[in-house]
Amino acid sequence: MQRIGSYTLQLDPPAYVLGSGSFAGKKEGEGPLKAYFDATHDDTTLGEDSWEKAESKLQTEAVKTAIQKAHLKSADIQYIFAGDLLNQCISSTYGLRGLGIPFLGQYGACSTMAQGLGMASVFVSSGAAENAVAVTSSHFCSAERQFRFPLEYGGQRTPTAQWTATAAGAAVLGHRPSAISVREVTFGRMTDLGVSDANNMGAAMAPAAVRTLTDYFTDTGTKPQDFDLVLTGDLGYVGSSLLREIMRKAGWNLETNHNDCGLMLYDRKKQDVHAGGSGCGCSGSVVCGYVFKQMEAGALNDVLFAATGALMSPTALQQGESIVGIAHAIHLHRET
Amino acid sequence: MQRIGSYTLQLDPPAYVLGSGSFAGKKEGEGPLKAYFDATHDDTTLGEDSWEKAESKLQTEAVKTAIQKAHLKSADIQYIFAGDLLNQCISSTYGLRGLGIPFLGQYGACSTMAQGLGMASVFVSSGAAENAVAVTSSHFCSAERQFRFPLEYGGQRTPTAQWTATAAGAAVLGHRPSAISVREVTFGRMTDLGVSDANNMGAAMAPAAVRTLTDYFTDTGTKPQDFDLVLTGDLGYVGSSLLREIMRKAGWNLETNHNDCGLMLYDRKKQDVHAGGSGCGCSGSVVCGYVFKQMEAGALNDVLFAATGALMSPTALQQGESIVGIAHAIHLHRET
Repeated sequence: MQRIGSYTLQLDPPAYVLGSGSFAGKKEGEGPLKAYFDATHDDTTLGEDSWEKAESKLQTEAVKTAIQKAHLKSADIQYIFAGDLLNQCISSTYGLRGLGIPFLGQYGACSTMAQGLGMASVFVSSGAAENAVAVTSSHFCSAERQFRFPLEYGGQRTPTAQWTATAAGAAVLGHRPSAISVREVTFGRMTDLGVSDANNMGAAMAPAAVRTLTDYFTDTGTKPQDFDLVLTGDLGYVGSSLLREIMRKAGWNLETNHNDCGLMLYDRKKQDVHAGGSGCGCSGSVVCGYVFKQMEAGALNDVLFAATGALMSPTALQQGESIVGIAHAIHLHRET
Repeated sequence: MQRIGSYTLQLDPPAYVLGSGSFAGKKEGEGPLKAYFDATHDDTTLGEDSWEKAESKLQTEAVKTAIQKAHLKSADIQYIFAGDLLNQCISSTYGLRGLGIPFLGQYGACSTMAQGLGMASVFVSSGAAENAVAVTSSHFCSAERQFRFPLEYGGQRTPTAQWTATAAGAAVLGHRPSAISVREVTFGRMTDLGVSDANNMGAAMAPAAVRTLTDYFTDTGTKPQDFDLVLTGDLGYVGSSLLREIMRKAGWNLETNHNDCGLMLYDRKKQDVHAGGSGCGCSGSVVCGYVFKQMEAGALNDVLFAATGALMSPTALQQGESIVGIAHAIHLHRET
């Protein structure tokens, strides 16, 4: 483990992705990434009594699948880093309580997949863990009623609003070499430029992505073109446009190889998701599904994954607060 | 860093406590630990517009004081590990957004102080950070209205209920040797024996404390009598009694040198707190105030601090769930 520049950790030895799981709901299964999920659920209750319990089950499925694909058992995992959007992170606690793995709850809002991957990688690289799991989830129905309105109310959504993904992603990181490694991690600083529109998370989070990506490129002496994909998640259309514009003005060209998990998960022309997807499970399922599979297949060699999060609550916004953004960046490298 | 036994990390080099801050409210200032806080606030709004903002301010104060006492500046801190009880951890995000330190939100309910201390220590010991901060808080008024009833309702409390502390604690961990070191960390597993009474958190969390303490003693080959203080936080009277009874039956004697942050923060004979104190800020302020000062003064040499948390939400309990408990243990050692 070596600190390079001001904000970046170089992992030596690297942490390897040993297995992953990616599960999603009906709407996500109708999108362009269907083939990359381990399974999608047409019944978004997953047969449970509540949406919260359904979301917990998505995490259970994702973790069990990831551990199985890593050819490991729960007892081989030293730590699980998990978090989600629900109050007190109950999708994670109730979804994972049966595993018997030491549990470290993380809260990074929609940046949780990157935060968890970073944490698990640091623990593995430092020798604190032989294997560690990162997992996160979100569910459209549990998020809507907690953050916005009861679904039955049928409230209209603004054009800048994003659609919370019903999905979960999990990954096992470990010492044992595999096709994909985590090479560097840049944990982000909170950035708040005063955006207070809860229906425009993209605008609130874009400055945080700018800051963390700039930190990463500066610390490592790299540029966007050194990567096959610079992947933010989940800025959506509005936030991605802002990100590219701000970065371009600062001399970083993201026009050719940037994409955003919120733009990839759904077909915005055919599916009514407004500015794109969001929620912890959005980047979680895209990375643990599409990205890892594309890397294993050799279609992507170097991916800079920078998940973004909006660290706010309805209570804070009702009290006149603005939305605090954050982004954490992870360099995923295909071993050849 | 070395893993010993099944669940414990031995930190070599250790992480040192370089500075700490401990702030509390009026009721806490009327208790037996007043002399150990950096300051107490007679106005529990701290001059802010809301209790949530007051709680944020407690975190700001605690962190700034801890960094100052460590003779450091914000720019010397690589990571801040922070969490609290409020939905989406807003006390942490809004309290710390101005510091410009990479932020890693933690969710461990009332175990957050131990989780954060453990995280910061692992990052320091592994070389991922030169210095890192752990901080947490709680506020009686913000917690009551979020988890139970509006204060104005004046609801009666059951004898097993605990009083959420208005308090915050912060510590700077670093490489530079000091009077107090973190020697081992045991991150806990979730434990759920089916307790579903939100007014009896002590009973819900005690089994988790049993498990983590047993893991620690087994892994390290130590026993309770090897410590000047085995300090749980915050089981209160009910949970502490259960802990001692279960441990005694398993052959571990906690009768002579166990105490609990929830029993220490208030004078239960004079102050109306029923089964004792609770909330992230309870163990946070007791450890970052009383414990560190007693260790620096030479009154305590070895403290095993095991903070407990109840990983649940009102929504989960309304849906018939039980309360998931967790505990993380930290061995604090006085350097002589």
